[in-house]
Amino acid sequence: MTVKKWTLTDVATGLQVDKLTISSQDLGGRLPGLEIRKTTLQGGLRDGVDVVRVDNGRMAFAVLPTRGMGLWKAWLDGQEIGWQSPVRGPVHPQFVPWMEPSGLGWLEGFDELLVRCGLESNGAPEFDPQGRLRYPLHGRIANRPAQRVEVEVDDESGELAVTGVVEESRFLFRSLRMTSRISTRLGEHHLRIRDEVENLSGSPTEVQLLYHINFGLPLLDAGSRFLAPLKKMMPRDARAAEGVATWDVYAAEEAGFAEQVYFLELVADAQGWSPALLRNAAGTRGVTVHANTNQLPCFTLWKNTAAAADGYVTGLEPGTNFPNPRTYEGRQGRVVQLAPGGAAVFQLGLEFHPSADQVQKAEQAIAALQAGVTPDVCPQPLAPWCVA
Amino acid sequence: MTVKKWTLTDVATGLQVDKLTISSQDLGGRLPGLEIRKTTLQGGLRDGVDVVRVDNGRMAFAVLPTRGMGLWKAWLDGQEIGWQSPVRGPVHPQFVPWMEPSGLGWLEGFDELLVRCGLESNGAPEFDPQGRLRYPLHGRIANRPAQRVEVEVDDESGELAVTGVVEESRFLFRSLRMTSRISTRLGEHHLRIRDEVENLSGSPTEVQLLYHINFGLPLLDAGSRFLAPLKKMMPRDARAAEGVATWDVYAAEEAGFAEQVYFLELVADAQGWSPALLRNAAGTRGVTVHANTNQLPCFTLWKNTAAAADGYVTGLEPGTNFPNPRTYEGRQGRVVQLAPGGAAVFQLGLEFHPSADQVQKAEQAIAALQAGVTPDVCPQPLAPWCVA
Amino acid sequence: MTVKKWTLTDVATGLQVDKLTISSQDLGGRLPGLEIRKTTLQGGLRDGVDVVRVDNGRMAFAVLPTRGMGLWKAWLDGQEIGWQSPVRGPVHPQFVPWMEPSGLGWLEGFDELLVRCGLESNGAPEFDPQGRLRYPLHGRIANRPAQRVEVEVDDESGELAVTGVVEESRFLFRSLRMTSRISTRLGEHHLRIRDEVENLSGSPTEVQLLYHINFGLPLLDAGSRFLAPLKKMMPRDARAAEGVATWDVYAAEEAGFAEQVYFLELVADAQGWSPALLRNAAGTRGVTVHANTNQLPCFTLWKNTAAAADGYVTGLEPGTNFPNPRTYEGRQGRVVQLAPGGAAVFQLGLEFHPSADQVQKAEQAIAALQAGVTPDVCPQPLAPWCVA
Repeated sequence: MTVKKWTLTDVATGLQVDKLTISSQDLGGRLPGLEIRKTTLQGGLRDGVDVVRVDNGRMAFAVLPTRGMGLWKAWLDGQEIGWQSPVRGPVHPQFVPWMEPSGLGWLEGFDELLVRCGLESNGAPEFDPQGRLRYPLHGRIANRPAQRVEVEVDDESGELAVTGVVEESRFLFRSLRMTSRISTRLGEHHLRIRDEVENLSGSPTEVQLLYHINFGLPLLDAGSRFLAPLKKMMPRDARAAEGVATWDVYAAEEAGFAEQVYFLELVADAQGWSPALLRNAAGTRGVTVHANTNQLPCFTLWKNTAAAADGYVTGLEPGTNFPNPRTYEGRQGRVVQLAPGGAAVFQLGLEFHPSADQVQKAEQAIAALQAGVTPDVCPQPLAPWCVA
Repeated sequence: MTVKKWTLTDVATGLQVDKLTISSQDLGGRLPGLEIRKTTLQGGLRDGVDVVRVDNGRMAFAVLPTRGMGLWKAWLDGQEIGWQSPVRGPVHPQFVPWMEPSGLGWLEGFDELLVRCGLESNGAPEFDPQGRLRYPLHGRIANRPAQRVEVEVDDESGELAVTGVVEESRFLFRSLRMTSRISTRLGEHHLRIRDEVENLSGSPTEVQLLYHINFGLPLLDAGSRFLAPLKKMMPRDARAAEGVATWDVYAAEEAGFAEQVYFLELVADAQGWSPALLRNAAGTRGVTVHANTNQLPCFTLWKNTAAAADGYVTGLEPGTNFPNPRTYEGRQGRVVQLAPGGAAVFQLGLEFHPSADQVQKAEQAIAALQAGVTPDVCPQPLAPWCVA
Repeated sequence: MTVKKWTLTDVATGLQVDKLTISSQDLGGRLPGLEIRKTTLQGGLRDGVDVVRVDNGRMAFAVLPTRGMGLWKAWLDGQEIGWQSPVRGPVHPQFVPWMEPSGLGWLEGFDELLVRCGLESNGAPEFDPQGRLRYPLHGRIANRPAQRVEVEVDDESGELAVTGVVEESRFLFRSLRMTSRISTRLGEHHLRIRDEVENLSGSPTEVQLLYHINFGLPLLDAGSRFLAPLKKMMPRDARAAEGVATWDVYAAEEAGFAEQVYFLELVADAQGWSPALLRNAAGTRGVTVHANTNQLPCFTLWKNTAAAADGYVTGLEPGTNFPNPRTYEGRQGRVVQLAPGGAAVFQLGLEFHPSADQVQKAEQAIAALQAGVTPDVCPQPLAPWCVA
């Protein structure tokens, strides 16, 4: 046997492990440097949040089963990667009023390196004609706890994985199950996510999913750049249009900076994979978000270079859609149709670049895909990408 | 002493027992087969839900103090009775957005064999003229945890009972206390519920209560029948009127089936008791809901023969009212008036029929009450029963 | 070293102490009579609420870190001081729908002797033109758990203190931190509160804070009086205007009594301190609320002499503002401006009077401040104090 498994949560059998540490010792000395640690946070706004921290010896990341299998933080060579959200989470869903009438309650829990937005909807809140909330900002999946969590270690390949099952169900409305697998290998600076979303209902349904992947210092700084093989780019609104000339570079922190959002279509390789790079000003560190554009055809870039205290941050966001109101996106067909019992798979990876050399290689990969493709850079928001 | 008591929860004295098992051994060998087990579920959407499972040797049922003393499931001769809700609960109230603006958040926790709807209101959500939620679907009592829970065993009569005290209070608005006692006797296939609702306020108030009692497989199947001694029947709306000719028989599961609801008045015996039977197609199994019509004069039959995956289910629902919007029901007087310090008692029973013989007896009991009464079967919804 | 500290909660380091008792023994026999006890309540609506009870040998009080460092109850010479709320709390925030569409959900958790209302807003709920909730009744701070809690004992001065850090943050909206210190000295019948509210954001912000300090029996009875050095008094609305002639005396409990609210400006000493006294009819017991009017210039008196069952209670409420809707108060400038990184301190004290003699002294202190100041008693509500 090469794959060893530990179940941390399983509501079906009543299993819940509050604390567990797995190390090389548990594998007879194999995979030295490995450590997987499950804890349950206590106190304050994080009371009851489960954390599974996976350390492959080089890179570590913390998964939050209680918050829909989001990634709280990552660490490369001991340095924290993520951002400093003013909500200072992680925040347990019980303290996030995600369905409050304005639809913006989700922002009280927004703290993660990677947070999924979906599954019924994501994007700006939408209201019915009487002003009643219909779709809250970014949906509910980030505030649903996993019903099942499992850790596995393959002591031959060195693969470490956390798998969680999160459900988004409302009787008479929908019955969705997301099985999320987050994995890495010993010594890598790369992590992979594979999410399968199943429609458990006897009727067809529609799904949206967007990965809100957020970086602040040290990857984001004044002069940082965003690079991706570009087919098309469009500012979301007038505010974003103001910054079109510098849409792919980042300014220093600025108190009161109003966010700018750009919608992108990327060039992909034959398998549909497309890399999007964020690198620091010096070009010595960076991260590539690899997303499969067959599954996640829309890419959103969110620039929020506000004061550090308010969350100096940028979001690289591959999605099934742009984060416009749900009905608008549905009209443009930017939703995933799932037949009864049907499923869709979404894949992406985060690759951290710890050196100038590796940043350069990442830039070259992007340049190779860009070669021969002239990007269509739109200066103004236009339908059907934007609610113009 | 013949009655032995165990307190499981008592907020007044700070008592909370997380785990307890009571068996015949604890009674000096009396009542063999008895088992009462208290657990607290952990993980996922059920994290923190208390369950008290009472097994009388023949039949068992699971009470959920955390969800307003609802009944999660029952088991007869080891076979589960209930239904397969797509919400896959039980769901802790912290994950049920029961006051979200649409008023339908209750559906995210709807999973039980028996769930109480009330106490301020039940039925369809109602909004003020500006579209603001005033009464959420089915009220809040199912999402309130018991402040006190007690188990008692009478080793002479063989009676086993769980009693819970659940409060529904809002300063300046209402102060209600429900003391719910759920009991059975050793070896029976019958359970009884006695709920007393007190108005603790110094001012008069009004109360509604409906027992949403839900069955799927194995009691519900294609060809199952509903039988009750009928005074009057009326379809709730146009959708229900479509099915009037077959209102008391059940079809096979059908994806996308839109629910049909029928409002009934039943014939009762001299004490006010009236039986309502659901039996399977073969007539080999069934359940009678016994309700006291002096306390619960309105009976609602809910047919939701949707796909199994979406909850193939029917609800037999004795209530103080029909589940129309609160204001409409109030205007028809279908509410219970409680003076300051006043109380009302609601009684019902669930009797499971494990054989054709017993199903037949249940049918005969209904026929005896029906004898000489010609039911008034209305083909269309009409005021004042329906919001026509 | 004379000051000894115990950390009870610290999310930054993952520390959470569920149970702790500190007594004179822990101080080598010093400060006899002292007892500080930390517990976490279990079961029902209070499940998970942390309580820190501080007993100085004469007076005790219970702090609720889970409810924004509110004071649940106090005890003087063993007699409970507070009021009997029909919500029978303390209620864990997970059961308080404080953002439900009507904006009144806060009332489901309202149970304390002292509850803070703020920090973004307090007062009556306010809605946008479409009827969507913008500011819920009394804000959210009372339903936020402390991120850090610490107890300290000075074995020289005999000072005992509980300090808690509570945050009110929403990404893109605000980032506030309240550090609340509640202290007393061995043998005193006096407690002091010092709250510092910091604006952690890089942008300026506005804050409101009102201390809703509530008393029922034994301090409030038929014939109880309110006394304070008065500059100006105004009834909030027509209902309060009905009672202007007797605004400072209390009637016996009366079922269905509709609350009356009076807005006051008080005379203060050179340091800004002003006392407000509630004493019982016999003049044998009382409490003075000392507030610093430089920080808390507005004083609200809430009379709710309803039936005991519904909460026979009065509120003495020093605040930065009157509890009118947020926008109205903002227009009158009754908010605290905080620069980026800025902070404001709010100080008050509760002094209990256990004898006629001490009540008289408290009355004399008020009379001395009143001397030479003729109060402006307005018989009707008028702008800009009231939404006239």
